[in-house]
Amino acid sequence: MLGSGLSNEYLTQIFDQYKDLKYGEVASYIPELKKAKPSHFAISVVDCQGQILSVGESELEVTLQSVSKPFSYGFVLEELGIEEVHHKVGVEPTGEAFNSIIELEESSHRPFNPMINSGAIAISSMIPGASDAQKLQSLTEFFGTLVDRTVHVDNTVFLSEKKTGDRNRAIAYLMKNFGILSGDVESILDLYFQQCSILMNTEDMAFMAATLANGGVQPKTGKNIFKAEHVKCCLSLMLTCGMYDSAGRWAFEVGLPAKSGVSGAIIAVVPGVCGIAVTSPLLDEHGHSCRGLEVIKKIAGDHNFNIFNPRG
Amino acid sequence: MLGSGLSNEYLTQIFDQYKDLKYGEVASYIPELKKAKPSHFAISVVDCQGQILSVGESELEVTLQSVSKPFSYGFVLEELGIEEVHHKVGVEPTGEAFNSIIELEESSHRPFNPMINSGAIAISSMIPGASDAQKLQSLTEFFGTLVDRTVHVDNTVFLSEKKTGDRNRAIAYLMKNFGILSGDVESILDLYFQQCSILMNTEDMAFMAATLANGGVQPKTGKNIFKAEHVKCCLSLMLTCGMYDSAGRWAFEVGLPAKSGVSGAIIAVVPGVCGIAVTSPLLDEHGHSCRGLEVIKKIAGDHNFNIFNPRG
Amino acid sequence: MLGSGLSNEYLTQIFDQYKDLKYGEVASYIPELKKAKPSHFAISVVDCQGQILSVGESELEVTLQSVSKPFSYGFVLEELGIEEVHHKVGVEPTGEAFNSIIELEESSHRPFNPMINSGAIAISSMIPGASDAQKLQSLTEFFGTLVDRTVHVDNTVFLSEKKTGDRNRAIAYLMKNFGILSGDVESILDLYFQQCSILMNTEDMAFMAATLANGGVQPKTGKNIFKAEHVKCCLSLMLTCGMYDSAGRWAFEVGLPAKSGVSGAIIAVVPGVCGIAVTSPLLDEHGHSCRGLEVIKKIAGDHNFNIFNPRG
Amino acid sequence: MLGSGLSNEYLTQIFDQYKDLKYGEVASYIPELKKAKPSHFAISVVDCQGQILSVGESELEVTLQSVSKPFSYGFVLEELGIEEVHHKVGVEPTGEAFNSIIELEESSHRPFNPMINSGAIAISSMIPGASDAQKLQSLTEFFGTLVDRTVHVDNTVFLSEKKTGDRNRAIAYLMKNFGILSGDVESILDLYFQQCSILMNTEDMAFMAATLANGGVQPKTGKNIFKAEHVKCCLSLMLTCGMYDSAGRWAFEVGLPAKSGVSGAIIAVVPGVCGIAVTSPLLDEHGHSCRGLEVIKKIAGDHNFNIFNPRG
Repeated sequence: MLGSGLSNEYLTQIFDQYKDLKYGEVASYIPELKKAKPSHFAISVVDCQGQILSVGESELEVTLQSVSKPFSYGFVLEELGIEEVHHKVGVEPTGEAFNSIIELEESSHRPFNPMINSGAIAISSMIPGASDAQKLQSLTEFFGTLVDRTVHVDNTVFLSEKKTGDRNRAIAYLMKNFGILSGDVESILDLYFQQCSILMNTEDMAFMAATLANGGVQPKTGKNIFKAEHVKCCLSLMLTCGMYDSAGRWAFEVGLPAKSGVSGAIIAVVPGVCGIAVTSPLLDEHGHSCRGLEVIKKIAGDHNFNIFNPRG
Repeated sequence: MLGSGLSNEYLTQIFDQYKDLKYGEVASYIPELKKAKPSHFAISVVDCQGQILSVGESELEVTLQSVSKPFSYGFVLEELGIEEVHHKVGVEPTGEAFNSIIELEESSHRPFNPMINSGAIAISSMIPGASDAQKLQSLTEFFGTLVDRTVHVDNTVFLSEKKTGDRNRAIAYLMKNFGILSGDVESILDLYFQQCSILMNTEDMAFMAATLANGGVQPKTGKNIFKAEHVKCCLSLMLTCGMYDSAGRWAFEVGLPAKSGVSGAIIAVVPGVCGIAVTSPLLDEHGHSCRGLEVIKKIAGDHNFNIFNPRG
Repeated sequence: MLGSGLSNEYLTQIFDQYKDLKYGEVASYIPELKKAKPSHFAISVVDCQGQILSVGESELEVTLQSVSKPFSYGFVLEELGIEEVHHKVGVEPTGEAFNSIIELEESSHRPFNPMINSGAIAISSMIPGASDAQKLQSLTEFFGTLVDRTVHVDNTVFLSEKKTGDRNRAIAYLMKNFGILSGDVESILDLYFQQCSILMNTEDMAFMAATLANGGVQPKTGKNIFKAEHVKCCLSLMLTCGMYDSAGRWAFEVGLPAKSGVSGAIIAVVPGVCGIAVTSPLLDEHGHSCRGLEVIKKIAGDHNFNIFNPRG
Repeated sequence: MLGSGLSNEYLTQIFDQYKDLKYGEVASYIPELKKAKPSHFAISVVDCQGQILSVGESELEVTLQSVSKPFSYGFVLEELGIEEVHHKVGVEPTGEAFNSIIELEESSHRPFNPMINSGAIAISSMIPGASDAQKLQSLTEFFGTLVDRTVHVDNTVFLSEKKTGDRNRAIAYLMKNFGILSGDVESILDLYFQQCSILMNTEDMAFMAATLANGGVQPKTGKNIFKAEHVKCCLSLMLTCGMYDSAGRWAFEVGLPAKSGVSGAIIAVVPGVCGIAVTSPLLDEHGHSCRGLEVIKKIAGDHNFNIFNPRG
């Protein structure tokens, strides 16, 4: 692959190296996620020219979960602009877990950033649309544009999240109490849970990451999805906040903007070069895919992908 | 200037644009710092080839204060390696102010990172030397290597910091209680206060930043001061933690590793391109130089210096 | 009045002394409470023999709000016993405001005590009854027994609390998430909001306090409403937690178990002697009736009512 | 014993009942305390008429540790008055452990109350005397008056506390930073550590508690040591804060003002009746004597000693 210096042989070798790594646990906090196949493992890389490298079950779809957050955030940036969006959501790391409610009680009552649940729920409330149905349609159409096909919500996962989402419900009502959310809380949560339940395969997610790597332009369709300044917003928040309470360690050790989801997907962005996606549902105690973390660290280390490197 | 795309005319124009910006307050928490000249204002840029651009009173020395932190951290990385250093100091942003004591009580009792006072005091305790005098000598020699001349400690500022340093004393005794510090607390604090009191002018600081921009090689002397992997450690911590509780906003808006000190100095690193230093003692409520923040934002914006940009 | 050493003349004199005290604000966080009459002021004392002293508009009803908390707590103690109730609710002061959500995130996830909103909502979920209607009936019948008459819920206040109760909704969903609450959150909150909206006059509230002063026996009807050991539970929690984040100061300055509500009511219990109630809707920044605090301090000081006094 | 309803037979029976209770650990955080005899067990009760009941090794001296706190607090109240003392120290429970530093960072920067280390150190700084030596003398003379004999500091324990007191040193420097402490921190800490190291036997401690039970008058000498209003201050703070983070549970279950120390001593006050002291160095995880807690609960329960009881 010209753009990234990666080859099919290299990726296959990495895949073989990590396929027997079997520690970690499938997510259990949503009943439906427990059904994931522990052996599922796939790696996809898409470069800025749209070339694709994939190994493993890269066509198997999983729900996006938190991998959706940088993109719904970018969507509302395009719709409303930086100022309006960040009037209600901050840009600071929390030092807390992804589902923290404590930080809402402190200082400004704004969610700390769009990469944690509270901030992502606030972002969901800004999705444009005259009705709940139209909002869902504009959201799925937007994600469809990112991957150049029609995308679907996994309704079983959506209903499972809705049924067990009392912590997110608590977060949402507290934000409503502080005036961060307006409108019907259950409708906003439904849209948020549906966003988390959008089905994508590993290659799709590599295309999403590659769109950010490519300055906002989808490498296959050439469509300009995000303004360059909004890409920088997404990437800086992915670097400082994307890996929750281990974001500092990730920036320190890997130095790439990234985002992981509890379905076992993780994406990383190498600006100007490529997007990387790994899917493997065995998670560590922070909720990150164990194989995913190792594979991305390995690829980044081998190819000197690190935004803190001097530029050539 | 070849390396950065900057010119003397541009820098003079920026200087003129911001020289009348007069809000902010001179630091008052150490009595000696109150004596700073509010009108002092200088900008220096040093590129990776060692070329220098300066405007304003760039020869006037001020104490480094927290601008010293990334460099003493890099120094002990060279001496002890990443693993030993980070056994006692973490790599996570705090979301708290620079002099927070609360985070030491939580979880691991390690300071969150080397850019805040607690972490920097722990770093000071790792400076090599058989005696207090030898430790001070090895520290000042190290800073001398960074700027290619003999450097001095401002003893009046040092004694002022020592006299009023009860908060840092509290932090140090708490770390001793947790086994993070060993040895005599007052000796460790003396070394830390002396490090903060090293005198440098704006051009010196631009050279220090340029050494990081240049992969650890001092651009004028060609001396390899930091290993490349240690430079990445410094830069990632400067980006995620260097601006304290506004680090997230800085990464979001400017996207450059940076560090500021309460003497009014602020440095920023453009990897592979140049180091930038601004000195102006009027501070905002976070303790950052007001003119310094504006000038660096302006230069970075005008030249598209942002580590989240796609690479050419 | 034999039991308390108080007289009508004394109470009238106190009333006159404080009737012109006009600082404080009517509660505004529930729209309906804003309609309270700022000049409303009444003092009632009921001794353990059932004798009544009242001055001011002691027949004017207001909603109980948090004054209901010790009694619904006592009610479920009678129904379920100490062990079962305190399996889900703690007995420690919080140092936080009445509507704090933070403490639920820490340690055991149990509400700290039954005198704050989270704990009182958990208590509401334990009110016996096969249906929502029966639970409401058993609750209002219980409060009716305390005051020897039929009591009513102010439905306008109830609906106003329900409509603006998003913070309590957040607290309840977080408790449901932690398994403290089971069942339908909206039904539990409805019962809680109805309990807060029960209408009582000042004399009623003095009878409620006198029932606790009299070891659990309603002084007029002679009905044994609370076991002696449950009375001690109520009184110790009223002393240590009844006045929220100023509970320590209240125990220190006044030394009487007490409970206040944002409708401007406040009750205090002098064990073995009498119950005191004051109603006046102008509140201080902690949500306590300004006149109420002063009047109870004055009466307690003048008559040496303080549980830390040596017993004769 | 007329005053308390207790008898020698009863106390011997309680002693026998609990003497084989052997769980818990001797305090280890100060090396010298580790030398305590695990089998040491003594109970003493002194009533308001000065009658004494004792079983076990009630003549064996141990250091007072935190049992000294209510009395040094009462001493400075007598010297300076409530207002001056509480200008620098609060009256609220913390919900934190005895040696918490966090609460100093919050709100007012005052220690929450005089029963925790931070507050007790602030109280030590108020002990009258023109020199360190005179302060120590006035302190030991005061404790001598409480027990009607000359008292001594255990210098080995004192030096052990001084050597390992870095956490208290951190607390003290933080208070100095906030202006709560003035003067030399090491001198203040020396006085505090010496206060903790005063040697007393179980009977002495029962006399100290009985002095509070008797309205401030030492029952044997008849000397009026504390004003009645200062006794109420001590007792309310012992009830709400004396047992640290389990203070609420203690008030709820036992309902008596009490204070425990890590040397294994614990005292309780029955106002108007008697003082109780138990010594046994095996501690629970909160730092309270295991046998001490059980014995006092048992005596209080059997005799209905509870300040929330209706008064006869």
